Parts: sequence; C-alpha cells; structure tokens
Amino acid sequence: MIELVLGGARSGKSAYAETIVRAQPGPWVYLATGQAWDDEMQERITRHQQERGAGWLTLEVPIELPQALRDAGEKTVLVDCLTLWLTNLLLGEHDIAAATEALLSALAARPGLTLLVGNEVGLGIVPDNALARRFRDEAGRLHQKIAALADKVVLTVAGIPLVVKPTAGEGKI
Amino acid sequence: MIELVLGGARSGKSAYAETIVRAQPGPWVYLATGQAWDDEMQERITRHQQERGAGWLTLEVPIELPQALRDAGEKTVLVDCLTLWLTNLLLGEHDIAAATEALLSALAARPGLTLLVGNEVGLGIVPDNALARRFRDEAGRLHQKIAALADKVVLTVAGIPLVVKPTAGEGKI
Amino acid sequence: MIELVLGGARSGKSAYAETIVRAQPGPWVYLATGQAWDDEMQERITRHQQERGAGWLTLEVPIELPQALRDAGEKTVLVDCLTLWLTNLLLGEHDIAAATEALLSALAARPGLTLLVGNEVGLGIVPDNALARRFRDEAGRLHQKIAALADKVVLTVAGIPLVVKPTAGEGKI
Repeated sequence: MIELVLGGARSGKSAYAETIVRAQPGPWVYLATGQAWDDEMQERITRHQQERGAGWLTLEVPIELPQALRDAGEKTVLVDCLTLWLTNLLLGEHDIAAATEALLSALAARPGLTLLVGNEVGLGIVPDNALARRFRDEAGRLHQKIAALADKVVLTVAGIPLVVKPTAGEGKI
Repeated sequence: MIELVLGGARSGKSAYAETIVRAQPGPWVYLATGQAWDDEMQERITRHQQERGAGWLTLEVPIELPQALRDAGEKTVLVDCLTLWLTNLLLGEHDIAAATEALLSALAARPGLTLLVGNEVGLGIVPDNALARRFRDEAGRLHQKIAALADKVVLTVAGIPLVVKPTAGEGKI
Repeated sequence: MIELVLGGARSGKSAYAETIVRAQPGPWVYLATGQAWDDEMQERITRHQQERGAGWLTLEVPIELPQALRDAGEKTVLVDCLTLWLTNLLLGEHDIAAATEALLSALAARPGLTLLVGNEVGLGIVPDNALARRFRDEAGRLHQKIAALADKVVLTVAGIPLVVKPTAGEGKI
C-alpha cells in the first residue's frame, strides 16, 4: 500500500502523513531527505524532529532513497519529502530519470505501507529562473508517476486531506 | 457557524463568500483588512466596494480584527481578507501567535455566521526572499488553525467552491 | 459540451484532455496557441507534437482562437492552451475583454465537444512584477468565465482529474 501526500507550504502534509503512519504498529521508519544547507533549513529539521517525538527510526537519505526503502523490510515507512530528494538529485547532477525508475521499482516491491510526502509547487506563476522551471517540471513528472502507482493520493489544504485518488472501495469523501 | 473560504488570485473567493452572506438577513458587516499602500491597492479596494453595493456595514480593521468580531454581535460578518490582516501584522511587527489566538477566541465566541476569506499562497515554487517565505509559512499556519475550528472549508477554483471540509451532515459534493 | 481542464505545471492537464478527445470519433482538431519565442519553448512544442501522434488536424492560432473554433464545425476540438493565448493577447496589447467575449460566444455556439486546457497560476505568492500580477488576474477572470459556461471543470493534480464542476447527472466522484 502506497499513499502519496501532496500539499503546499505549511498545509499540514507531514502531520497528516504521520497520523496515518502512527495508526500502524511501530517502530516506524522515517526517511529524511533534507540536508541542512543553511541555518534556516537546520532549524526546520530540528523543529520537525522535536515535533515527531519517540518511536521513529530516523535515517538521513538525501540520495539513496530506493535502497533505504528496500532495507526497511516490512516496516511502515514515511518518506519526508520527495521535494528535497529531487532537489538533492538536481543539485548533485544525478540522472533523475534513472533515480525515478529505481524509486518506483523499490516502492512497487515493498511489502509494508509507504507514505510519501511532496510539495505541490506547480500552481503559481512561471518562475523567472530556468533552474526553478526545471525543478517544477521534474517535480510534476515525479508526482505523476508515483500517483499512477499509488493506491491513494491526497492533497492537503489548510491541514485537511482532500482525496484526489481514493483507494479501491473508498468513495472520494 | 464559521466558514473559511480559501482560493487563489481571482478565483472568485470574495464573490462566493458574499453570496453566502447575502443569503442571511442583513445588515451584513464587512470587515475590510486592506490598507491602500499604493495606487494599485487603492484601485482594488474601490472596485471591490463598488461591486459589493448597498446593505453592508463596512469597517476598516487592518489590525483589530478580534475586537471587531466581538463588536459585530449577532450580525453576519465577512472578513475580507485574512491575507491582508496577516500582512499588516507582519509589516507592523506584531506578535502573530498572540493575534492568532485572539482571533480564534473571538471566532469561537461569535453567535452569528462568520465567513473568512484567505488567499492560498503556498502552492508555487519556494520564493526567493525570506519575508515571502515567512509570510507563506505564517499564512499556512493561520489557515490550518482556522480550518480546524471552522464548520466548513472550501477552496474556490475558477469561481467554483470545492468543498474541503463539509459541514456535519453535508456530503462532500 | 465544453470541458475546462485546469492544472499546474506538469500536472497532466494536456494528457488528460487528449484522452477525453481520443474517446470521440476523429479527426480531432488541435488548436495550438503557443508561439516559439525561444529555444526552450520550441523544444516543448516539438516534444508535445511528437507525444500526440497521428489523427490530429493541428492549427497554430496564437490570437484568432474564436474564429478557429467556429471553423472547426462539428469536430471535437482541443484548445491547448488558454494560458498561451492570454499571454499572446497581453504581449500584443489586444483588448482582452473583447477577445474573451468573442471566445465565449464561439464556445457557446459550437455543436461539437470542446476541451480547453489552462494553467492554474494563482496559488503562489503574489509576484514581484506588475505584468505577472496582471497576467494572474486576467487568467483568473478568464477561467471563471469559461468555468461558468462549461459543462464540466476539472483540476488535474499529479495526473489525476479532480472534478470541480461535475456534468449534470454526474456525482463529484
């Protein structure tokens, strides 16, 4: 079972995803893709860790997300977030198409529940700079591919999950 | 009864909220948080007033929104908009956490219907400048808190309200 | 029958709209509003044409969209996209209100199915520059007017159509 949680900045994506994960038996694996590039980012990472509390096995995986998903075995996993993983791939000039395929294979092969959190970034004005435009395009493509594979997709709005793709047997309510 | 109306630029948020308010017995209280910083803003304010027409008690409350909500008593109130109120708090270096708590208390204590309009600004690329990032974060937090308290939340898309949180007994249709 | 397909960058808008069109008997008319201003744009246009494949009558209509809709007669038409049409009108200093009215009249008079694709651009931070703000406002107004006329409106999220305005008799599922 794969659930993709998209949402805007401070829309409650991670909090929603954590609630879903906590409803499963622990321990839960938290795959953190963020890297502390500057003080602002370090502060966000620290605050998020404190808010999460105990019961989590936290791993920092800025790049090797597919391997970490395989290593998690049957445990419930929260990937937070796709956006920073993609940023790391882009800035490190990795092959994004290959990394995406590896991610999709690892996701499809998982026995346990996987929650993936991503920022929806494509609903504003076209950005001025080319890197931001490329990032936006890559994020859109990545989200589409994961959404096609996922059993459920939600878009969080003001902390509330709006169901975009319901699981089989679940109405879009 | 509290209804939060989120939406993008020119998505029909205010027009939708006004329709809901006009279905109630008047006079209606319009709490305008906008301040005319420049000609473009003055022009928007004037155009919106003209479009609204008669039957409204309009008050300009750039900062003192909680007090104005209490003063409105049992009347139906439209707050337009949270985004400009938050902007005024930020630019005036007010304590946003305290102002938010005061707003939530005033909302929870209201006997009448309250419609609150806010711009959803978190679904684009991360902004370059730190103030815009902070604003985006604060807006997201504020919307989440109001949404948790609200009886109903909608997101307007091209003038059409998409129900994010239905009122009890109402399907998400 | 008119269907408006809104969505963010790389959200699967065009692919969804093409799927709907292909379910109709062909040949289908593809009204392309994009102009190759630079290499990046030329590359996008070429890639999209290749992805679309055979069976389409493609016409480039950067400005004269209303006339092209009338000329298409009873054929099924895909307009891709409103955003570039509006950009062309703005940059060419055309009368947008008049062009919008002409578009709405042409749409209302069409006997065949019309799919219109547009970028939702209003859900990010207020842009710094005045032209981008004006574009955002004009796009919002245009989408609202077409949505009011349309039989169906969807917002694509990660490739999945979220129904904003269902056709009569169809639940919002």
